[in-house]
Amino acid sequence: MTTATSLFDPVENDLSILIDNLTSLVQAQHPILGAAAEHLFSAGGKRIRPAIVLLLSRATMKGLDITPRHRRLAEITEMIHTASLVHDDVVDDAELRRQVPTVNTLFGNRIAVLAGDFLFAQSSWYLANLDNLQVVKLLSEVIRDFAEGEIQQGLSCFDTDVTLEKYLQKSYFKTASLIANSGKAAVILSDAGEEIANKIYSYGRNLGLAFQIVDDILDFTTTTEILGKPAASDLASGNLTAPVLFAMEEKPSLKILIEREFSEEGDLPQALDLINQSHGIEKARALAYQHSQLALEDLQCLPNSPAKESLMDLTDYVLSRIK
Amino acid sequence: MTTATSLFDPVENDLSILIDNLTSLVQAQHPILGAAAEHLFSAGGKRIRPAIVLLLSRATMKGLDITPRHRRLAEITEMIHTASLVHDDVVDDAELRRQVPTVNTLFGNRIAVLAGDFLFAQSSWYLANLDNLQVVKLLSEVIRDFAEGEIQQGLSCFDTDVTLEKYLQKSYFKTASLIANSGKAAVILSDAGEEIANKIYSYGRNLGLAFQIVDDILDFTTTTEILGKPAASDLASGNLTAPVLFAMEEKPSLKILIEREFSEEGDLPQALDLINQSHGIEKARALAYQHSQLALEDLQCLPNSPAKESLMDLTDYVLSRIK
Repeated sequence: MTTATSLFDPVENDLSILIDNLTSLVQAQHPILGAAAEHLFSAGGKRIRPAIVLLLSRATMKGLDITPRHRRLAEITEMIHTASLVHDDVVDDAELRRQVPTVNTLFGNRIAVLAGDFLFAQSSWYLANLDNLQVVKLLSEVIRDFAEGEIQQGLSCFDTDVTLEKYLQKSYFKTASLIANSGKAAVILSDAGEEIANKIYSYGRNLGLAFQIVDDILDFTTTTEILGKPAASDLASGNLTAPVLFAMEEKPSLKILIEREFSEEGDLPQALDLINQSHGIEKARALAYQHSQLALEDLQCLPNSPAKESLMDLTDYVLSRIK
Repeated sequence: MTTATSLFDPVENDLSILIDNLTSLVQAQHPILGAAAEHLFSAGGKRIRPAIVLLLSRATMKGLDITPRHRRLAEITEMIHTASLVHDDVVDDAELRRQVPTVNTLFGNRIAVLAGDFLFAQSSWYLANLDNLQVVKLLSEVIRDFAEGEIQQGLSCFDTDVTLEKYLQKSYFKTASLIANSGKAAVILSDAGEEIANKIYSYGRNLGLAFQIVDDILDFTTTTEILGKPAASDLASGNLTAPVLFAMEEKPSLKILIEREFSEEGDLPQALDLINQSHGIEKARALAYQHSQLALEDLQCLPNSPAKESLMDLTDYVLSRIK
């Protein structure tokens, strides 16, 4: 099986420069955030998002080296992503992420809100200084989509009328928007033309959706230990994801349990049984596969290169986590 | 005495359009934030920041009407300000602001973090769509300064080595940066030239500093009821402002009380007595006056107009609160 590390071979060096830059940026300026930053940028993240930006940058530069602005874009992408995680964990009162205690758990809500604000603020300042209005618009769209996604998720808790379409829209806001828009921005910085920019936006959108659907499947199929957070925690908190939406079509009694918010003893285990007896997870897997295939097709616009190979492998790697 | 309302006569109509736009923007999109928004945009704020943007817009348009982009800039200014207040109150665990319970008190930290993120996100999206890179840079600087100011304040709690210079820098980050940079942005949107833009930046900086120093004086001279938050709350939480910094020069024993963080019974009242016996408040008042005079001089670059009159009166109004 391809590992995330070998997958990113063409940008391995770029990624270590990125981590150094991010760590020193936050630490040098703010000792108080230093510990939080250290924790954030070394908490076992796979840097998938900046890696995709760097790979797309290399894949669209026709063999020329990538520019400092490409690198800065990758840094901005990781900063926005990290800021959103930190605030999400405050909002969701999460104790663990990637098997590691969250910033709010370790340092309290105060530092977590500050650290997120600082990262958002720093990223919008970096962004403005890329001096490209189109790129500013694409990434400010991402920040807005994050807030929108988090709000939609709050609004639709335990709402059994949520459609698959609505679920995909929320997943776009929360996960795919960053990959789609930062990817498109990389192509724009490479000056590779409108058509490729739009295809790459679509690649990012499809890859991001596949990624989120797989994550939502893993919430049901993995143990707490491997997942780094309690299993089925999405369902327990009323976040109805693809496996649940498909399962509800087959098992109407599941709706009753959800609508009463698992308030009676044994409701949650019973709901999990119903989901496992249905084809919910299988259908969600098919949906993830479909988006990963669409992502693969979107890449046909790119000339061959090691970076393109990695981007193609990534569509497969995303699925490998549920194989 | 001039009231804030009569002061803003030349933009009274503009301000009511602004409030309508802001309220409907947040409410239409997000019922969950609706209540918080209603609360935020009707909590008795004087709209001083957007009023200054609108006045500067009118004062630099040579008698022509202001543009939709000027209006949007004023909205962005109020959104950024409001977002920062909401997150500040989470960070400081504040229960009251302007005599009204804070968003975190009424709706919890979860909604407060979300509401702030949404307002920051929406404002950076509006900002990008003003299609002016220089304006984007000025306002993204403000967002960064907010985070910086809040962090500096956290770092320097109970630190009796804080200098007046450091205090002024923090006050610039927390208060003056928004007025200075949004004011400069208004001049840029009016296309009124670099020289006026820089003078107006200086006006905003000086006015903002005077404003903050006055606020810090009021923390000592006003009762809880009038202030809408506990009196001397800055001092109690270790935030050493101008009156304290001046008082420490005269009363070295004050330092001891601060350095032990008022840990012994009677420390805080004793510290307040020492400050009142010193010339701390008087010297802080002189400092505020000085900045308000500098702000007045900065306005000489503008042609005469009712808007300019208001901007001049504002330098006096700021001080009137401590007269």
